[in-house]
Amino acid sequence: MSPEPAKAAERIGRNGLDRELIHGGDVVGHRLEYGSPPLDFSASLNPLGPPAGMLAAARAAVADAVSYPDPLCRELTAALAKRLPAPEDAIFLGCGAVEVIHRLALVLRPRNALVTAPAFAEYERALIPLGCAVRRHFLDAAAGFRLEAGILDSIREDLDVFFLCQPNNPTGHLAEPDLLEAIAERASGKGVFLAVDQCFLGLTDNPEKYSLLEKSLAGPGVMIVDSFTKLYGLAGIRLGFGVSGDPALIRKLRSTGPPWTVSRIAQAAGLAALAEAEFVRESRAYLRAERKWLAEELTRLGLETIGGAANYLFFASPRPDLRERMAGRGILIRDCRDFAGLGPGHYRVAVRLREDNRRLIRAVEELWREGGAHPWPGR
Amino acid sequence: MSPEPAKAAERIGRNGLDRELIHGGDVVGHRLEYGSPPLDFSASLNPLGPPAGMLAAARAAVADAVSYPDPLCRELTAALAKRLPAPEDAIFLGCGAVEVIHRLALVLRPRNALVTAPAFAEYERALIPLGCAVRRHFLDAAAGFRLEAGILDSIREDLDVFFLCQPNNPTGHLAEPDLLEAIAERASGKGVFLAVDQCFLGLTDNPEKYSLLEKSLAGPGVMIVDSFTKLYGLAGIRLGFGVSGDPALIRKLRSTGPPWTVSRIAQAAGLAALAEAEFVRESRAYLRAERKWLAEELTRLGLETIGGAANYLFFASPRPDLRERMAGRGILIRDCRDFAGLGPGHYRVAVRLREDNRRLIRAVEELWREGGAHPWPGR
Repeated sequence: MSPEPAKAAERIGRNGLDRELIHGGDVVGHRLEYGSPPLDFSASLNPLGPPAGMLAAARAAVADAVSYPDPLCRELTAALAKRLPAPEDAIFLGCGAVEVIHRLALVLRPRNALVTAPAFAEYERALIPLGCAVRRHFLDAAAGFRLEAGILDSIREDLDVFFLCQPNNPTGHLAEPDLLEAIAERASGKGVFLAVDQCFLGLTDNPEKYSLLEKSLAGPGVMIVDSFTKLYGLAGIRLGFGVSGDPALIRKLRSTGPPWTVSRIAQAAGLAALAEAEFVRESRAYLRAERKWLAEELTRLGLETIGGAANYLFFASPRPDLRERMAGRGILIRDCRDFAGLGPGHYRVAVRLREDNRRLIRAVEELWREGGAHPWPGR
Repeated sequence: MSPEPAKAAERIGRNGLDRELIHGGDVVGHRLEYGSPPLDFSASLNPLGPPAGMLAAARAAVADAVSYPDPLCRELTAALAKRLPAPEDAIFLGCGAVEVIHRLALVLRPRNALVTAPAFAEYERALIPLGCAVRRHFLDAAAGFRLEAGILDSIREDLDVFFLCQPNNPTGHLAEPDLLEAIAERASGKGVFLAVDQCFLGLTDNPEKYSLLEKSLAGPGVMIVDSFTKLYGLAGIRLGFGVSGDPALIRKLRSTGPPWTVSRIAQAAGLAALAEAEFVRESRAYLRAERKWLAEELTRLGLETIGGAANYLFFASPRPDLRERMAGRGILIRDCRDFAGLGPGHYRVAVRLREDNRRLIRAVEELWREGGAHPWPGR
């Protein structure tokens, strides 16, 4: 019999490794707990990735790693500038999008910030230790946690920055172009810096339509944050970036914080990734079909998904122990109860390859069978 | 004819990539300027590294990089704890020693800090953006920039932290054990946190004798910062660590700043490196003999080295254009004029393999021959 999940946290605590594991993807923790690595639905990465060329470039770069990485990431910056397109002085590269987020907080040094709840937790984690007061705009559960025009009223003069997640994590909702436009207008009018996390946008159906890249390049006040990690399925190498049409801000990002955070391997892998336009198109096409299939299967099992624009699906379940029960079956899903604005019974799963997705569905079916005919009490 | 070096900076500036390059190892900049990669004496890495096992582990880890790195670095922390030895809750792993330094500054949030001048520039770069006032204890040029007992008077009650570099970078001087002891006593008595950067200590002859590791483990108030980069010659993967017998401080380091900054590849390479005890012994033996040879050769050419305990040599030259002249010959050396407390004519070179070191010496000989019989005016 597997030990209770609480014990894992305790054991980690006893080893002194008690930093909160507030994100998905704790494959090592699962292995320590259950003895073998899980099928991981808790981290949302492109299931078709990484492309072979990117892996080969990363492997080849290991031999070059005898010397320091270029602290200015000159080659990768130039290539990314061509690809976006954007001027080189509009691009900052970091050790994953999370480093871009933390460094932006350090450079802006906001006193008052706005986030939605739920949203990716790193915005708050970057802001609060700097003494910033974080205000949460709670998304309405009755509206499926969709971002609505009410957000505009929350963008007020006394704010310094608003971190917006597009599509939102964990819900997978996209803010509509009209609303985005209104948000950018309002933020600009109120002098509020708008940071838009588009880490998962590249895996949605129509990224250009929902992107604030152009707006971010139009001048100061807006920055988009993006990642190579999710789009290319190589989260272990750490590569993210920020784009802003404010060269002074980009200069500050480059000169604040530790140098050399983008490794040789990450720079080489990033360069190779930029050549993979076809891979990205294929990934989008695959995800379009597969997220539909997986959402239908989950719905068939009584787990209705909401949002669903991204490469992950968000759903509520009246069973608050779904994570633990699935973990016992070797499957890691994201329990979203630690997201502000959510509670027990909210979950997120990545859209993976069909075979893996079938395993997820089968595991839920088994669980329902064991626990009774149907998961919904009273239904 | 090569363009003047100033143009490179300008060109970089025009591309908007004008973050100050305040450290050595700008191999990319040299390549852009001169068309081919330099023989790099400006970054000080173990010339025998990396060990083959470490390279193989890093290469193998690329395939695993499809998932996130363990944000807690559990396996590597456990292995390093055994090796030091130190408790697991005394260890923080980061994206190079520079990330440890920056994160420590962020956690301590000091108002007043002390550094020596010269010393590694990142202490100031980490402290100043946080609003910390940095006081410099200038090392006496007449005493060869050696750290002397006068430092004790500079450790005063109004300070929050003292960043000490052991051996000092760029001078290569080691503070003697008695002085170290006195510094630690004094800092403790005055309530000043002592951060000791031992990144190059592993490549000196007798690291244990000059290390504050034990003191750092004895309780709060002292942390050592160390790196895998220099010791194992794999600067491109980014892996450093801090050790302190203050579990609360280590917890704060882990929970402040972005997660996942230690890549999968860095964690795997670090684990492999810890098995290489014989490689480290061989490296020390090689460097002991080779630094002596190189120092004698430089002295023969009129460039007297001082310090010289580390895997690099520091010297003064009356020719302030030595860096540019050597760069024109395809050799990158560290011009130390941008170190606080130093000026034009101070240089640092890494101790490399004999064949490379001969190239350095030959290049200086050629330069002297071209520029006249002897570099010292009036000699």
